[in-house]
Amino acid sequence: MDLTVTTADLAAVAADAVRLVPGKLLDPVLAGLLLEAGPRGVVAAATDRDRAARLECPALVHTEGRVLVPAKPLAETLRALDLPQVRLVVEGSRLAIRAPGARFALPLLDADSHPGVASLPRVVGSVDASVLTSALGVVAATASRDDALPMFTGVRMRAEGDRLVVLASDRYRLAVASLPWEPTGEAFDAMIPATLLLEVARQAPDGAQVTLHADGDRVGLAWHHAVVTTSLLDAGFLHESKVSVSDVDTTVEVDADAMAGAVRRVSLYADTRGTLRLEVGDGEVWLRGADQQAGEAEESVKAEVSGGRTSPTFQSRFLVDALKAFAGRRVRIELQPGLRATVFRAADEDPTDLRYLVVPIMPRT
Amino acid sequence: MDLTVTTADLAAVAADAVRLVPGKLLDPVLAGLLLEAGPRGVVAAATDRDRAARLECPALVHTEGRVLVPAKPLAETLRALDLPQVRLVVEGSRLAIRAPGARFALPLLDADSHPGVASLPRVVGSVDASVLTSALGVVAATASRDDALPMFTGVRMRAEGDRLVVLASDRYRLAVASLPWEPTGEAFDAMIPATLLLEVARQAPDGAQVTLHADGDRVGLAWHHAVVTTSLLDAGFLHESKVSVSDVDTTVEVDADAMAGAVRRVSLYADTRGTLRLEVGDGEVWLRGADQQAGEAEESVKAEVSGGRTSPTFQSRFLVDALKAFAGRRVRIELQPGLRATVFRAADEDPTDLRYLVVPIMPRT
Repeated sequence: MDLTVTTADLAAVAADAVRLVPGKLLDPVLAGLLLEAGPRGVVAAATDRDRAARLECPALVHTEGRVLVPAKPLAETLRALDLPQVRLVVEGSRLAIRAPGARFALPLLDADSHPGVASLPRVVGSVDASVLTSALGVVAATASRDDALPMFTGVRMRAEGDRLVVLASDRYRLAVASLPWEPTGEAFDAMIPATLLLEVARQAPDGAQVTLHADGDRVGLAWHHAVVTTSLLDAGFLHESKVSVSDVDTTVEVDADAMAGAVRRVSLYADTRGTLRLEVGDGEVWLRGADQQAGEAEESVKAEVSGGRTSPTFQSRFLVDALKAFAGRRVRIELQPGLRATVFRAADEDPTDLRYLVVPIMPRT
Repeated sequence: MDLTVTTADLAAVAADAVRLVPGKLLDPVLAGLLLEAGPRGVVAAATDRDRAARLECPALVHTEGRVLVPAKPLAETLRALDLPQVRLVVEGSRLAIRAPGARFALPLLDADSHPGVASLPRVVGSVDASVLTSALGVVAATASRDDALPMFTGVRMRAEGDRLVVLASDRYRLAVASLPWEPTGEAFDAMIPATLLLEVARQAPDGAQVTLHADGDRVGLAWHHAVVTTSLLDAGFLHESKVSVSDVDTTVEVDADAMAGAVRRVSLYADTRGTLRLEVGDGEVWLRGADQQAGEAEESVKAEVSGGRTSPTFQSRFLVDALKAFAGRRVRIELQPGLRATVFRAADEDPTDLRYLVVPIMPRT
């Protein structure tokens, strides 16, 4: 293999591959990046058996070939170079990265023992990258990071006619959005690791279309010159219909940023559980926190209020996350009595119909 | 106590006090900030018995008074407020921070049990803040962070006529600078905690004069409206004369940033000890790294070379630190044979006469 490539292009491809498939450190083959130089450029592929990624990069190929090299060292070397172009050439048992006055030589791993990257399942639809990215930024971040409960570490994606419903919950709160998409008509209902979707949201550029692929075992996402596939998580019982929102007795409309600022300040005085009380007044809501050690705080936020006077208690960090999802906008907060979920949604038109549900907790008496 | 103050001013004073005296969490009195409102404004004082700080803040005082409140909650509340002004008023057993539509109430601690802040020792001299800050940025960062060896966690400051010598070492490298200052003529030789000096360097504004104060037990630094004092560390044997630089046989002059970039790249291929070899050639130096797992790397940097061909091996992170101290400049590197120290200094005029010594390590055979 012998090729010349724009350093930044191959650096981005190698870094993206490492981020999509963090790899198993214990197995050098699975920590490797498979590079295939062909007439159309170079294709980089990585897999940890669960996940797989394949990314294309234009290159001037002098001699075709196929090598497996340690992925992270390759990515780090390319990132550290501040030269416009770089040459990759196989020299004996090494892949040499050559630049004027410098040579970096990575050991070749056994490419033949690499399991390769499976092909994509069939297409189920496609969605605009910026719409998907915006929704996943909230929904995927709501999933749990606790691998001991894997069914809460995923995002459920479900086809519902011309809408794609994305949903995640860590049991304390639930975020659900409904996106416009172009379905092929195939059934689609998959639980996908949230960490992978957050990375896809980071990489898929605005303006691109992301195509979704699925069969019974695997799901894939593809955009521009990148493809990633993963095995599915168990969808379990995660479904928005599990949460009742039929009993709303109070509705509050506030500026999300103003309320987030007040929550941030009052939460400095939260008790050891980190809780705040939300009290609905006339034309305003009050946030109150009190702790034997820290003292007390209260702050009011202007609001349009209708209905009863339900006053739930929340963990302040969940309030912060819920309000952040509507940053720069007005948010409508629908309260239900007792410990039933509170719903946050945009007060104005929202093409993704994002709803953020937070479960209040029992106030201390 | 009752006063109105510019929020940003008091927020800065409270945050600076917390950073100068991080406080002992186990003792609420020492975790407190003493606020004294008088005719000239408000004075904030903190101490952990070893260190003490006193900072002045202009304020419109309605009623004078003296209170002790938890320092960090006060600093965090003031930082979180986005209002130009705020009112502090004692209400029963609370210090209330009042703003329109908001009230934050901190518990009052027992001000009478606070040990207070000792007065400054006598003046020994003064130094320009930007000169001191620039030298401490390198020298104080070279001190050890390992509290198990307290004599290496300090910076030795010593009067030598019209120069102030500052010196620190963590045993693997040593940084020493000689600053112009205005001495009073008093003897001055003190070992000061490096973390405190780094914080002073962060806070003392460019253009200010920092006055140094000392007696046999304590040292103090004062600028603008801020004063900090600390008890001394044991100066021990830390002295620049302990390191011999009499045997230089090779001198290399390079662009510090170009060499730092090469070190960063080649160090990706360093062995498990993180070492690189520096080889002096004709009109260039080569950096070489090799590891059984990572592969090999070599990169050359243009250099003016004179003298022998000594080729020492370094831990790459110490090379990075040494070169960072001369960022944006050309650096002269003086090599001695064997495991004797290598000296880095500016190739051009340097008013602080900064020298950075790194001890090579034994190459693996």
